[in-house]
Amino acid sequence: MNTPCDLAPAHIRAILPYQPGKPMSELAREMGLELHRIVKLASNENPLGISPKAHLAMQDALEDIARYPDGNSYALRTAVCEKFGLQPAQLVFGNGSNDILELAARAFLTPGSEAIYAEHAFAVYALVTQAIGATGITVPAKDFGHDLDAMLAAITPRTRMIFIANPNNPTGTWLSKDALLDFLRQVPSSVLVVLDEAYDEYLAADLKSTSPQWLDEFSNLIVSRTFSKAYGLAGLRIGFGMTSASVADIMNRVRQPFNVNSVAQAAAVASLADEDFVARSYALNSAGMLQITRGLQALGLEWIPSYGNFVSFRIDGAAAAYQYLLRQGVILRPVANYGMPDYLRVSIGLHDENTRFLEVLQQYLAQA
Amino acid sequence: MNTPCDLAPAHIRAILPYQPGKPMSELAREMGLELHRIVKLASNENPLGISPKAHLAMQDALEDIARYPDGNSYALRTAVCEKFGLQPAQLVFGNGSNDILELAARAFLTPGSEAIYAEHAFAVYALVTQAIGATGITVPAKDFGHDLDAMLAAITPRTRMIFIANPNNPTGTWLSKDALLDFLRQVPSSVLVVLDEAYDEYLAADLKSTSPQWLDEFSNLIVSRTFSKAYGLAGLRIGFGMTSASVADIMNRVRQPFNVNSVAQAAAVASLADEDFVARSYALNSAGMLQITRGLQALGLEWIPSYGNFVSFRIDGAAAAYQYLLRQGVILRPVANYGMPDYLRVSIGLHDENTRFLEVLQQYLAQA
Repeated sequence: MNTPCDLAPAHIRAILPYQPGKPMSELAREMGLELHRIVKLASNENPLGISPKAHLAMQDALEDIARYPDGNSYALRTAVCEKFGLQPAQLVFGNGSNDILELAARAFLTPGSEAIYAEHAFAVYALVTQAIGATGITVPAKDFGHDLDAMLAAITPRTRMIFIANPNNPTGTWLSKDALLDFLRQVPSSVLVVLDEAYDEYLAADLKSTSPQWLDEFSNLIVSRTFSKAYGLAGLRIGFGMTSASVADIMNRVRQPFNVNSVAQAAAVASLADEDFVARSYALNSAGMLQITRGLQALGLEWIPSYGNFVSFRIDGAAAAYQYLLRQGVILRPVANYGMPDYLRVSIGLHDENTRFLEVLQQYLAQA
Repeated sequence: MNTPCDLAPAHIRAILPYQPGKPMSELAREMGLELHRIVKLASNENPLGISPKAHLAMQDALEDIARYPDGNSYALRTAVCEKFGLQPAQLVFGNGSNDILELAARAFLTPGSEAIYAEHAFAVYALVTQAIGATGITVPAKDFGHDLDAMLAAITPRTRMIFIANPNNPTGTWLSKDALLDFLRQVPSSVLVVLDEAYDEYLAADLKSTSPQWLDEFSNLIVSRTFSKAYGLAGLRIGFGMTSASVADIMNRVRQPFNVNSVAQAAAVASLADEDFVARSYALNSAGMLQITRGLQALGLEWIPSYGNFVSFRIDGAAAAYQYLLRQGVILRPVANYGMPDYLRVSIGLHDENTRFLEVLQQYLAQA
């Protein structure tokens, strides 16, 4: 007699789950380190924390936490519409933007269809595709970034979705508005383009995406945003998709009715209203990016120029270096599973965290 | 040229989303009512709120909210294992138990397979089945409850999953341990049984489920629990599944890596440790159930005897009654979508809320 697991679809049984950055508490347990001495630069989190306004909003939301969340995210929907000039029906809210990526896949992919994404792109694109049993088409990267011409050439009659990350994680590469618009105009209107802008807030003002304004022209465009990065709400899980009303309607049909918790909704509304906090996060990141890349240069290491709040650098024996840094209480992210076995990714931290990372890295190189 | 929506699977386009209880804020906006005058008895929430210990734990968790959650829910996993005598690998954590139901469906159902559930059972079973494109088999109810013999008879070679809610929502019916064990022993071991025990904490001590102890005998059993009901954490979204390690492993492959937020994890750990709060919630519910059913009896109305924190009662013109109560600021749940157009479901509230409900119901009957 077969077990239920024997009968589970082969594409499900073959999934290798996402490898998250090691939590600080886990490292502390494993290595017997003190929690406050650990420097985690592994998950592109905001080292400044969150907006003080968001903190107050979260406190308030706790008072009514026995009630189910508003499944329509009314207050947040109104705030996002106002910020981006959209209609309420164009939005889909998610339990992190991971949820948005998954909802798109579940609503539009089938076992017979194809989804295209770039080599070295965010791992979740492949995971959500595989979970449907759809076929993932990986297009080789160009200078670690998306090769849009090659991605266009990969479109077949079975293609239903193309994932684009801009900036991309873990490489930090960036695509210009002109390049993206040119690309979108060549994608058949039957193919959805999921434009993942999780790191948009870390772009300079003149580089920031204007993609929400493109939704009138491209009804096959889904723009994904998150509150986990510059807004600092990673622990709460909230992101959203902006698209055509018709696409949003289909995505909402597979959305869990209460997928976004109340605290996240309240914090997101307050965060959107605190532009000063985002500006401070951007400024800290710019300074930290300079500090870290100068440090890497001084150590004679190469890195991939990054537009995000992280940078991937090349180091011989990357796996050994990762372990060495772990033992010293510095958590980076190995990116071998992104096809980059000679690289490590470091998130930009506070000045002292960056300094500590560079010191330990120097120690590693001295003894390697 | 087709649009992406034209090409979305027909079973996705056909989904009718879940109808949640109307949020208080929405009713206040729509009817121009003051928020504090609204009585919501629509979503089986805990009128006592949450454990004070959970409140403190949530406050603490907010301090580190810019970090991603622990994707393994280490602390909560340890606490649940201890409470139920299970191994860590037997657990799956979800963004509410809705997530557990969906993960089971996504991991084990396929477009060619069948899932069985009872007439009048929780709406999400049909939704998660339909989202896969699997075939849902609805088995007629017996006295509003699950007809286990008929459910056994409905098993075919294509059956992969059977959903059982105990107690059931929205009918409140309950199945004894003996009946369930007898049922489980007749289900082929290749068919998963998802036993949804969201309301277990509202059962008297001698009726409470012992199903976690059955997992050694039945590797095809998934027991689903939630923190949204008696624990009062509905707004945070957290639930979990207990099953065999092999089934949990497959479910975890389709789980979003950070599906459970940090605040929920912390609150759940604290809630599990506060048995006094659950005891008070149980006692309040028992008293309120008596108050409401006596009130219904005095008004000459029939109800379905319930083992949950809600009761469904029969009323002529249920839709009109629902609207009348809404206008008076009392939110109930219509259950026409559960095949019960002549019933309304009322959640057990605080004494004064129950009194207000019965008063307004009496007014409705007097003028109807």
